[in-house]
Amino acid sequence: MADKSEKMKARLPRGLVDRGADDIRAVEKMMATIRSVYELYGFESVDQPMIEYTDALGKFLPDQDRPNEGVFSFQDDDDQWLSLRYDLTAPMARFVAENFERLPKPYRSYRSGWVFRNEKPGPGRFRQFMQFDADTVGTPGVAADAEMAMMMADVMEALGIKRGDYVIRVNNRKVLDGVLEAIGLGGDENVGRRLTVLRAIDKLDKLGVEGVRLLLGTGRKDESGDFTKGAGLDNVQAEAILHATAKPELGDLGHPDSAVRASQSFNEGVAELSTIEDLVRAAGYGEDRIVMDRSVVRGLEYYTGPVYEAELLAEIPNEEGKIVRFGSVGGGGRYDGLVSRFRGEPVPATGFSIGVSRLMTALKNLGKLDTSDVIAPVVVLTMDKDTESLGRYQKMVAELRAAGIRSEMYLGGAGMKAQLKYADRRGSPVAIIQGGDERAKAEVQIKDLIEGARMSAEIADNAEWRAARPAQVTVAESELVREVRKILAAQAEERARGK
Amino acid sequence: MADKSEKMKARLPRGLVDRGADDIRAVEKMMATIRSVYELYGFESVDQPMIEYTDALGKFLPDQDRPNEGVFSFQDDDDQWLSLRYDLTAPMARFVAENFERLPKPYRSYRSGWVFRNEKPGPGRFRQFMQFDADTVGTPGVAADAEMAMMMADVMEALGIKRGDYVIRVNNRKVLDGVLEAIGLGGDENVGRRLTVLRAIDKLDKLGVEGVRLLLGTGRKDESGDFTKGAGLDNVQAEAILHATAKPELGDLGHPDSAVRASQSFNEGVAELSTIEDLVRAAGYGEDRIVMDRSVVRGLEYYTGPVYEAELLAEIPNEEGKIVRFGSVGGGGRYDGLVSRFRGEPVPATGFSIGVSRLMTALKNLGKLDTSDVIAPVVVLTMDKDTESLGRYQKMVAELRAAGIRSEMYLGGAGMKAQLKYADRRGSPVAIIQGGDERAKAEVQIKDLIEGARMSAEIADNAEWRAARPAQVTVAESELVREVRKILAAQAEERARGK
Repeated sequence: MADKSEKMKARLPRGLVDRGADDIRAVEKMMATIRSVYELYGFESVDQPMIEYTDALGKFLPDQDRPNEGVFSFQDDDDQWLSLRYDLTAPMARFVAENFERLPKPYRSYRSGWVFRNEKPGPGRFRQFMQFDADTVGTPGVAADAEMAMMMADVMEALGIKRGDYVIRVNNRKVLDGVLEAIGLGGDENVGRRLTVLRAIDKLDKLGVEGVRLLLGTGRKDESGDFTKGAGLDNVQAEAILHATAKPELGDLGHPDSAVRASQSFNEGVAELSTIEDLVRAAGYGEDRIVMDRSVVRGLEYYTGPVYEAELLAEIPNEEGKIVRFGSVGGGGRYDGLVSRFRGEPVPATGFSIGVSRLMTALKNLGKLDTSDVIAPVVVLTMDKDTESLGRYQKMVAELRAAGIRSEMYLGGAGMKAQLKYADRRGSPVAIIQGGDERAKAEVQIKDLIEGARMSAEIADNAEWRAARPAQVTVAESELVREVRKILAAQAEERARGK
Repeated sequence: MADKSEKMKARLPRGLVDRGADDIRAVEKMMATIRSVYELYGFESVDQPMIEYTDALGKFLPDQDRPNEGVFSFQDDDDQWLSLRYDLTAPMARFVAENFERLPKPYRSYRSGWVFRNEKPGPGRFRQFMQFDADTVGTPGVAADAEMAMMMADVMEALGIKRGDYVIRVNNRKVLDGVLEAIGLGGDENVGRRLTVLRAIDKLDKLGVEGVRLLLGTGRKDESGDFTKGAGLDNVQAEAILHATAKPELGDLGHPDSAVRASQSFNEGVAELSTIEDLVRAAGYGEDRIVMDRSVVRGLEYYTGPVYEAELLAEIPNEEGKIVRFGSVGGGGRYDGLVSRFRGEPVPATGFSIGVSRLMTALKNLGKLDTSDVIAPVVVLTMDKDTESLGRYQKMVAELRAAGIRSEMYLGGAGMKAQLKYADRRGSPVAIIQGGDERAKAEVQIKDLIEGARMSAEIADNAEWRAARPAQVTVAESELVREVRKILAAQAEERARGK
């Protein structure tokens, strides 16, 4: 096994990442806050497994032209196909359909967890990532959609994002559907072209109006020279689309032509949007928090009505470190078809999903996820390695832990210098040393590693404070816990001053 | 989509389960406690993804005779094989090997998450389940193993399991290896038979000495008539094994014969066990918490030295509701080969794994995971469904939530009676009602649903208390929050009395 020539390569498959303690803590802190808002709204926690029958998940991923592309699939021993879930909505739809009779309706639930995409990974684009969703199943009323928008706004503020640094944008697919009908893109035969149009509009933020106009027409060549085929619309058609999906700041919907005005879908969509606006305003959510925005379409195919999106307006570093307007951190919409597939009866539903890693990156960059209150462990050095001495050191850590002080006994085989280096690498606040001399006098040496590092860096200011806090003291064994507590308290005070 | 004839069947694949709010909360509460102990010991949180290269995971599952059996695998688009992790140890070994230079050593880490087994599911046996592990990599000293045993004991008590209701059992694979050598089962050519012996001993608790003796010999027929082939040992060999793995209560190791005494492995194992015992006793862990027990072998193939197991002694209902001595809720051991495979140099390691669902079941049955402090939401009924009225109800829930009261507006289309039924199904404490009459007087009706249920059940006692707390009051709109708070407080007091 220890033969170098035969050793295996330790490597992670593409698009997957290991997570360190800081990120795990930051995510946990953030998720606890989101959960408290969902709970406050009366949503119930529920959880589905990560594996489902492939056919139960359906084929609703964006940018996937071949069936099953984008999904990790494998065959069960009874030959049925299983897949890893690619989002939390499809498994939830299966769950609600399977347990429909016993669930209260409307059914309000939330869930978080890993989802998987079998896609080409890229910067900030992973094959395993976490989502945090809330859904209401069983009501067609747009009051449920309005509630989702308000809850997203409340989540943003609960996370410490200031009003003005975020906005929830709301639109309705039916408005666009009406325009598509009016320009001759209705009907089953145009599903593909309608999807191409949706995807083009979804890129408004990235490509601007001119870029989207190309994608609606013959196509667009990007900087790298890659050509994306367009939807093949003529100028009049493209203008109608661009007009109907213009950002609010670019002007209102204006005067749709008579064909659009005649569309039932269009009129329903406009009326629903207006009701949502009335409801959120009545509940006290102003335009600084929730806006109606006809440019929001969302990439997923399964939405059938209102769609909404949470956008961070603050200019902060993104995953690649570039300062940008951060953009979407979550969104959702109404998906009246997903549960119905299983039930053979209409089961309207609406819900949204937060991209956990992306939002965590944003919050960290905004300084809203401070986890520096977690202190690295005190390290008790093992100066002698015989069983009796190890037992003695073990007793010291046991005492420290009993006092609630995070601590460990050094378990490696190295000498004192390397052990102090280990403590340094761990970021330890304090090291405890007892060699033969100290042992004979029933004493322990306690090193303040933070103060020690500061002194060795020769910081000149605050000389008095330094003088009052030596980097190393020797105390009686019985004073160990008391003395370590004192040093940790002094370090905490110093951290608070430095802030 | 709503055509009954074409509808899909909503069903979960075998061996997978949905989890409800109670179980999710109970697991979270339990995991937070376990985490706090791991942190106190100075372990660091780290997380690996669920997908790894198949070859990196290795083939260490018990009870799997064909390669890849027991694991969910699929091919990546570059034709490399990927698998879902079957435990947290193999991915951790890959992670440590890949990041070896930058990690402090010994490297102390913990992680929790879902793992997957492609096996035949059964009662209490799932294809997706959760583990919670801690590991120390980079030290051969058994002080690290002793620490694991002590940490497991501390975890049990932190979870509220009384001393005497659990025990940590420790053994050493080397002891058994020595015996196997001595009876002629050493060497690579006997790997298969050694595994059969390990699995037989692992069933001591279930089958008793007689059952194991059959499995060590020609084989055993179970109640259903299924025959399991034995290891084919003769009587002398079988007795040597049974003797070396006898439970402490069945007598000590006694006098091993000269062949066994001559085995280096055996003597190392015995010496290591003795050192572990000295270390845990020196740290104050008595035989009521940690015992040396030669019957512990653990089913996994990759252990190379000390092995340990946490056992619940309390007699409580298991997953199938049968009152039993609950048994193992976690275990682990030293696996010096796992990281070495990648490094081409010895990298000793030790760690343990807690079976989260199993331990949660035990704790719930012991009454240690009470989550009844979570109150279902207050429901604001929607008596009128026009946008203006909905806006008014929406404002009421917004006020309640701003006061920290979990609440929701009823979003379905049903009438008052069905809405109250909905509130009942949710377990709501309070319902808020405002119809046209109340609206005209700027009042709201508040129903105490807990008291209401009690009154309708005609409980006769404590008549005075009942009289003081009517099931329904009408107050001014402006008094809504104050009055709901009052009722919730009265309900809380009553719950506390009832306990």
